[in-house]
Formats: sequence, structure tokens, C-alpha cells
Amino acid sequence: MPGHLVVLSGGLDSTVCMALATADSGRPPLALTFDYGQRHRTELDRAAGVAGHYRSEHLVVELDTTAWGGSALTDPSIDVPLGGTEGGIPVTYVPARNSIFLAVSLGVAEARGLDAVWIGVNAIDYSGYPDCRPQFIEAFRGVAATGQKRGVEGNPIAIRTPLIESTKSEIVLLGLAHGAPLQLTWSCYQGGDRPCGACDACVLRARGFAEAGVDDPAMP
Amino acid sequence: MPGHLVVLSGGLDSTVCMALATADSGRPPLALTFDYGQRHRTELDRAAGVAGHYRSEHLVVELDTTAWGGSALTDPSIDVPLGGTEGGIPVTYVPARNSIFLAVSLGVAEARGLDAVWIGVNAIDYSGYPDCRPQFIEAFRGVAATGQKRGVEGNPIAIRTPLIESTKSEIVLLGLAHGAPLQLTWSCYQGGDRPCGACDACVLRARGFAEAGVDDPAMP
Repeated sequence: MPGHLVVLSGGLDSTVCMALATADSGRPPLALTFDYGQRHRTELDRAAGVAGHYRSEHLVVELDTTAWGGSALTDPSIDVPLGGTEGGIPVTYVPARNSIFLAVSLGVAEARGLDAVWIGVNAIDYSGYPDCRPQFIEAFRGVAATGQKRGVEGNPIAIRTPLIESTKSEIVLLGLAHGAPLQLTWSCYQGGDRPCGACDACVLRARGFAEAGVDDPAMP
Repeated sequence: MPGHLVVLSGGLDSTVCMALATADSGRPPLALTFDYGQRHRTELDRAAGVAGHYRSEHLVVELDTTAWGGSALTDPSIDVPLGGTEGGIPVTYVPARNSIFLAVSLGVAEARGLDAVWIGVNAIDYSGYPDCRPQFIEAFRGVAATGQKRGVEGNPIAIRTPLIESTKSEIVLLGLAHGAPLQLTWSCYQGGDRPCGACDACVLRARGFAEAGVDDPAMP
């Protein structure tokens, strides 16, 4: 049975990926979470909860991106916008975040003999980050094929993005259908005790549950 | 004047890249060094020395890859081979190392408004690592073009590999011609006080200096 790795932020999309990867392989995937200095540190605890739910090994990789910043999510001097989803690429974009996540994930997967990396990127109901789009994922598959021992030996580690073309309401319904513990997840970009309800991530999440016609089990 | 970033290990090739990037832009590049748990930790001090020589800002990024291992360079239970250069991809290969280095470098460069990332990969006199070859670099250029704000806005960060098709002796001579402080560099994969003289990196380095007809200024 092939082993899988899931990039787990503790948010909605990555938690649904945990459910899908578990269903696909019939055993707990390795959950990989990045502590990159994000202001919404609550998601780290949520990721641990989701990994525990699936009885997965949970590897937390620390990489202090606040040393260079460049994002509202990692630089306290840049505010998270609260006016709903913006046009263009917002200030919450973290430079090269998913490149870093995928590169580390491919390294871990190769070292551990795993066959696939799952990442819950979505290019439909999203904040507009370029590193969530199909063109980027395809480019990274080229990296896996050319830059790794596994790749040049003809057996590249797969990068699986089952949610990339889904709407947020489809992701909600898919998660519920697979018994994903959505009540454990956290999406808000802010660092408070409760979701702010006003940042991009909160707005997209609320709309997704509303369009799916179900209550958000993580809302108090 | 565009600013540059150089991935600086403290070895011969990356130090020559520091010289070339400085000559190209007329000012000190940002030097980026990775403390990834390598057994040859001496190179971290050497990198600091080289960065100091160029009066560069020196950013050291910590990423503990020993948590997953998979390489003789990061796992104390795997010995570094001392029988000269092997065939195939050796056990000193670190899974996805240059993918991780380039992903972080692209993030730092974007956050800091720099225009190019220089990396001293070489696919001629090398250990056979796939992430030193032109195909891999080309794939990563695709990542920079598709996965970053700078890229999708039509101004991708360049990845420069001036040494990729050079022999080691050509690299030595290029470094000397540009006044690179080769006496400060460290290549050995082992963790001792002096180069072991027997690992891949030592053998390739010695052969390069011999073919260039010059003494290695870093040898006692």
C-alpha cells in the first residue's frame, strides 16, 4: 500500500485532503505542518487536532519566514485586510509559500519512501495567490521529475491536488461526505481566539458553507 | 541597480558565485546560507567568512532536515563514502535540497525586491545529484514564473547558474580571475577540522586545483 503525505495547515481544504488521502490509501497519511511564523498560530493547534483525529504521524517543520517577511501573514507591521476579497494578489500573499511547502514535502516524502504529496490548493474560491493555480502545480511536477533521485529514476513522487478546481461549497460537501472533522478546522488569517469573520479566508469559508446549505460546525 | 541573492554554502562554487554576482551588479549581494543540519558544519563558519569578505548581509536560514533524514550528510547513521566518486546518485544526496534552497531563495528575493537568485550548481565535475542539472534548473524557472506574484506579473526573479557547465578547474580559474577568497572556502562533506581528502567533494576539489595548475589556498 503506498504511503502518502498531506500538507496540513489545519484549515478546511487541507483537512478535506486528509480525508481523501486516507480514503485513497486506506491508512493514515503522514501529516506535515509548517510553523512559518504565521500570525494565525491557532491553525497549528488545529492541525495537531486533525492529525490526531486520523491517528497520523504529525511532523511540524519550523521555518522562520518572519526573518524576511513580505506578507501581512508574517509581518506584524502589515495589516490583514478586512474589506472582503480584494482584486489582484492581496497583501496576505506569502512569497513562495507553496513552493517552500512542496519542496520540503517532496524531500520528506522521498526520505520516507512515500509515493504522493497531497496539497489542498484551490484556484476557484481563493484569495488569488498564484501558487494555488494549476500552472504552478504543473511546474512543480517538473521539479519532482527532474530534481529528485526518485524522479530521474522514473518514479517521481506524485503531487495530488484534488480540490484545485472545486468551489468552496463543493469542498464542504466533499468533506462532510468523507467524515472530515470540519469542526476542528481554522481558516481565519487573524490571530484571535475566534474567527474574525471579515478577512478573505473567513468570507470565503462562510460563503462556502452558506452555498452548501449547512452550518459551519467550527463556528461557536 | 538590481539587487541579487547568492545561495552561499561556503564552498568553492558558491564563493565564486559571490564574486561573479558582485562583479555583475557592482554591489554586495545578499548571501543566503542554510543551516539544514549538515554534518559538515564548518561550512557555516566559512560562509560567514565569505559573506564578510564581500561585506554582504548574511542571512542564515535554519531548517532541521535531520527530522526526516535520508542522506549521509544529515543522518549520522549513514557513513559518507570515502572511495572516491561513485557511479549513480550517491548516499550523500539530500532529498530535494536544492528545491528547498531555491524555493526559500525565491521567497526571500521577492520579499526583499531582488531581481536574481544565483546558485553555484555544476553538472560536470559533481557528485551526480539530479538537482544540480540544467533540466532541474529549467523546471524551477517555471516555478518562479508561475508561482510568484513577480512571475505572474511578467517580471520573474531570474535563476542564474553561471557555473553549471564548467569544469572544476575552470571554476577555480574563474574564481582566481575575480579575486574570490578561495582560501576561506570549505568543500569536505565530513565534519572534521581539516578536509578528509577522500570524500567526493575533496576528490573533485583536489582534481580541479591540480588541473588548473594552482595550489589550493585553503589546504594547510
